[in-house]
Amino acid sequence: MENVEFCRKADQLKPVLYKEEIDFPGSEKILKEGEEIIFDLGNHYVGHVDIDFGTVGRHPDAPLYFEIQFAEIKEELSYDSSSYHGWLSKSWIQQEYIHLDNLPGSISLPRRYAFRYVRIRVLSTSPNYDVYIKGLRVHSETSADDKKVKRYSWSEKDRLLDDISIRTLRSCMQEVFEDGPKRDRRLWLGDLRLQALANYETFQNDDLVKRCLYLFAGHPLEEGRLSSNIFLYLEEEADDQPMFDYALFFIDTLWDYYSHTGDKETLEELYPTAYRQFVLSSSCIDENGSVDEAKAGRVFVDWNFELDRNVSALGIYIYALKDLLKMARELNKDTKAIEDEIARRSLDALKLYDEREGFFVSGEKKQISWMSQIWMILSGVIDEEKGNAVLERLSKRKNAVGMNSPYAYHHYIQVLIDLGRKEEAYQKMHEYWDGMIERGSSTFWELYDPKDPVASPYGGLVVHSFCHAWSCTPAYFLRKYFKDKEIRD
Amino acid sequence: MENVEFCRKADQLKPVLYKEEIDFPGSEKILKEGEEIIFDLGNHYVGHVDIDFGTVGRHPDAPLYFEIQFAEIKEELSYDSSSYHGWLSKSWIQQEYIHLDNLPGSISLPRRYAFRYVRIRVLSTSPNYDVYIKGLRVHSETSADDKKVKRYSWSEKDRLLDDISIRTLRSCMQEVFEDGPKRDRRLWLGDLRLQALANYETFQNDDLVKRCLYLFAGHPLEEGRLSSNIFLYLEEEADDQPMFDYALFFIDTLWDYYSHTGDKETLEELYPTAYRQFVLSSSCIDENGSVDEAKAGRVFVDWNFELDRNVSALGIYIYALKDLLKMARELNKDTKAIEDEIARRSLDALKLYDEREGFFVSGEKKQISWMSQIWMILSGVIDEEKGNAVLERLSKRKNAVGMNSPYAYHHYIQVLIDLGRKEEAYQKMHEYWDGMIERGSSTFWELYDPKDPVASPYGGLVVHSFCHAWSCTPAYFLRKYFKDKEIRD
Repeated sequence: MENVEFCRKADQLKPVLYKEEIDFPGSEKILKEGEEIIFDLGNHYVGHVDIDFGTVGRHPDAPLYFEIQFAEIKEELSYDSSSYHGWLSKSWIQQEYIHLDNLPGSISLPRRYAFRYVRIRVLSTSPNYDVYIKGLRVHSETSADDKKVKRYSWSEKDRLLDDISIRTLRSCMQEVFEDGPKRDRRLWLGDLRLQALANYETFQNDDLVKRCLYLFAGHPLEEGRLSSNIFLYLEEEADDQPMFDYALFFIDTLWDYYSHTGDKETLEELYPTAYRQFVLSSSCIDENGSVDEAKAGRVFVDWNFELDRNVSALGIYIYALKDLLKMARELNKDTKAIEDEIARRSLDALKLYDEREGFFVSGEKKQISWMSQIWMILSGVIDEEKGNAVLERLSKRKNAVGMNSPYAYHHYIQVLIDLGRKEEAYQKMHEYWDGMIERGSSTFWELYDPKDPVASPYGGLVVHSFCHAWSCTPAYFLRKYFKDKEIRD
Repeated sequence: MENVEFCRKADQLKPVLYKEEIDFPGSEKILKEGEEIIFDLGNHYVGHVDIDFGTVGRHPDAPLYFEIQFAEIKEELSYDSSSYHGWLSKSWIQQEYIHLDNLPGSISLPRRYAFRYVRIRVLSTSPNYDVYIKGLRVHSETSADDKKVKRYSWSEKDRLLDDISIRTLRSCMQEVFEDGPKRDRRLWLGDLRLQALANYETFQNDDLVKRCLYLFAGHPLEEGRLSSNIFLYLEEEADDQPMFDYALFFIDTLWDYYSHTGDKETLEELYPTAYRQFVLSSSCIDENGSVDEAKAGRVFVDWNFELDRNVSALGIYIYALKDLLKMARELNKDTKAIEDEIARRSLDALKLYDEREGFFVSGEKKQISWMSQIWMILSGVIDEEKGNAVLERLSKRKNAVGMNSPYAYHHYIQVLIDLGRKEEAYQKMHEYWDGMIERGSSTFWELYDPKDPVASPYGGLVVHSFCHAWSCTPAYFLRKYFKDKEIRD
C-alpha cells in the first residue's frame, strides 16, 4: 500500500520545468495536396510545438487537413507507420492527423513530443489555396539546468560524445527521470540508477533523484517489493510487475545518492525499503541464480533475448548486497545477515565458474555470455587478476552471447575501468557510442547493436526510443574517469 | 474596397452565442482495439464536445489512439471516408484521429462540429487496458434564442415539420447566418434571404440579419458588386466570386428586413448598395436572360446541373427590381429608371413565352423547366390566371427539368401560395420535406431529390451538409400562411 508520507515528500520535490521557446524559420516551399516538408531542427527537443501556416492563392474555403510526424532520428520517417504491427502499442508513433479551420494561422499541438525532425504532409486543402510553413516554435521542457553543466576542453570527439550524452539525459529529465521522453515516459528503476550517476556529474539535480527514490518507496507492491517502474499519469501508481534486478538496484541508487549528497536523513528513512528488497530477493533466488520470476518478476539485465540470466541475477544480487552492507555500516545497523549472505552467495557464484572453459556458465545449457562475466566481476566474486583473465578470454571467444543495449554496455565499460583497463574502456566506449553518432543521431538510443543497428525487438523501429536515458553514461565516465583527457588532447 | 464604417457596424452587431452544456450518458460497452460505438444524441447540435474515457484492466501504459467521427445523419457513418475523391475538399469530413495520453480521462476536442451521431472507434490501446465511454458532453452553440419561438397546437406532422425547420435554422445561426454549420460555415446571400424570412417568424434575431447585410455591404468587390458569400475566418473577406442572382437578392433581403423591422436608417444607408446591384446587373444580362458570367458571376437558381438558367435569371432580375422600386418609393427616390427597366425587361421576358408549348422556354434549346416557370410567375411578368394555367400544364408535363434543392422548392411553394393554391402548397411542402423526415433526419438538407435521395453533385454524401439553412422555410410558411391549421387539427 501507498506510503502517504513518502508520496508527500516525492510530491514536494516535483520540479518546476525550465521552459524555453525556440523559433525555427519555416520554408517558402509551397505544399500542395500530398506534398510534404521535413524540418531538421538540428538537435533533440522534448516539448510542445506550434506550427505557423501561411497560405497562397484565394481565401481558404475549406479546412486544412495535414499529417505531422515527429521523429528522433530521420530513419523513423521512412517507416510506413500503417505497416507497424509489433507488440508495442502503435499509439507510441508520434504521428497526428489534424484539421486546421482558420487559415492562415497557427496551431499549438496539445501533446508533448520528443523529436529532432518534423515532417508535415498536406492531406487536403482546396482548389482555392495551398499552404507553406511560416515557422515552427518549440516550447522545450526539461528539469535539467543547463547552467550547472561544466564543459571541458576535450578533443572534438570527446566533446561530441559528452554533448550527446548530456542532451540525452536533459531530454529525459522531466518531472521524473523518464526512461525515454518518446516512450514510455515512465520512471524505471534500472534507468534511474544510471541517470542519477550521470546527473551527479552534470546537471546536479539531486532533488530529482531523491524525488524518484521516494516515488518508488512510496508505491511498494505486495510485501513491500518495489516495482520496476512507476506510472505518472493520471496518477502516480506502481506498475504491478516487479523486476528482480530492478528492485535490487534501489539499494545501489540509494547508496549512490547518499555517497554523492551525504543526505543521511534520506538514507535513514529509505534504508528499511532497501533492506526489504534484500529480504524479499533472498528467498527468490537459488544457488544457481535461478529466480522465482512469478514472485520477484523477470530478470532484465539486457534486451538480448538469447541471454541466460541466471549468473547475471546472482551477480546483481551480490553487487546490491555489498552496497547494502555499506549503508548498514554507515547507519550502525546490524550487518551480520548481509555479510553472511554475501559470503554464502559468493561461494554459490564461484561454483558456476567452469574451470575448463575459464568462464562463468549460466543455466542448464551452461551458456557463456558477456553479461554473466561482467556481473560476476562487478560483484567482486572474483578478484581483479581473475577478472582480467576472464575478460581477455572473452574478447577472443567467438560465440559468447553479446549485448545489445547501451544499458548493458555501461556495465561493460564500468568493468573495464574497475579492472584498471581505463584506456580500453575509453576506446570501447567511443567505439560503441560513436556508432550512434555516425548514424547522425543527436541523442543516444534505447537499443544499439553495432552488428545490426536497426534490429528491433518490438517489430519496427518507428516505436523505438532514440533518446533513452540509460545510454547517457558517457558523460559520467568522461567526467569521473577521463577528466585528464582535457590536458592530453 | 472595404467600407470601414459598414464593417464596424457589422462588428458591433456580432452576437454573443448562447452556450448550453448537455451531458449524455456513455456506455458500459468495453472497446478493444478495432471496436467502435455509435452514439445517437437524438437531435442535431452545433458546438464543441468532450469525451470522457474510462479504462478497464491494468494501469494504461501507452496512449489511447482513437478515431472519432461526427455525422449529421447516420448514412454518413457507413461511407468509407478514405474512398472520397469528390471535388469538395475532403477536409470537410468530420473525422479525427486522436491520441490521448492521460487515462482514464477526458478530452475536449478543439474544433466545432455539426452532428447528431458520434462514432468512436479504438485504434490502439495496449495489452494492459481497454476503454469504454463514460460520457459525452456537448457544448451547444447558437445565436438563436429558443425562448423567442412561439409554438402552435398544430397537428403532429405540422409540429414535426416545424420543429425540424427550426432546429435547422437554429444550428445555422452562429456569428452569422451560416449556410451549413458542417460546411461551408459561411455567409451566403442566397441562403441569408431565406434564413431571414424564417428568422422573423421564429427567433426574431433581427440584429443578426442587419449584421449580415452590413457584412455584405462592407465588403464589396470591384465596382461595388456584392460577393455571393463572405468568409469569416481568420478575417472577414468577400469571396472574389460573385453570383448574378445572389447579388440581386441583397435588394430583396434588405427590403424584407425593412418590411419586418421598419428600420429606416439601415434602409437609407444600404439603399445605394442595393441600387448599385441593379445598375451592375442591368449591363450584364441581355433580352434573353443570358448573363455575362465573366463579369457578374454564375447564375445559381438551383443545384440541378441540367437547368438552363436564362429565363430564371431574367425573372430574378425583375423580381429584385420590384423590391428595389418599393424601397425607392419608401425613400422618395427617383423611381423612373427602375420602372422603365422593369417595363422593358418584362416585355423581353414575355417574348420568351412559347405560345405553342404554353411555357417559358430558356436558352437556345428552348428548355422547359420548373424553375423558369416559377421565377416568371414570382416576378409578376404574367398574371395569376396565366400563372395558374402554366402551373397546371407543368404538373402534367413529363420531361420538364425539375428541382433538386430545398432552396428551389421554397420558390415553388411560394409560387403556389402567391397563386392562391394554399392547400396545394401545404401538401407539396409536406410531400417534399417529409421525405427527409422519413429518412430519420432531425434537420433539413442542402440537397434533396425525392427521386434520388442520395444523389451527390459532390461525389460522395460524406461531405454533404445535412443541416442547411435554405431548407428551413417550412417554419416560415407554416407561420405566415398556415397558422389557421392550429384550429383545424
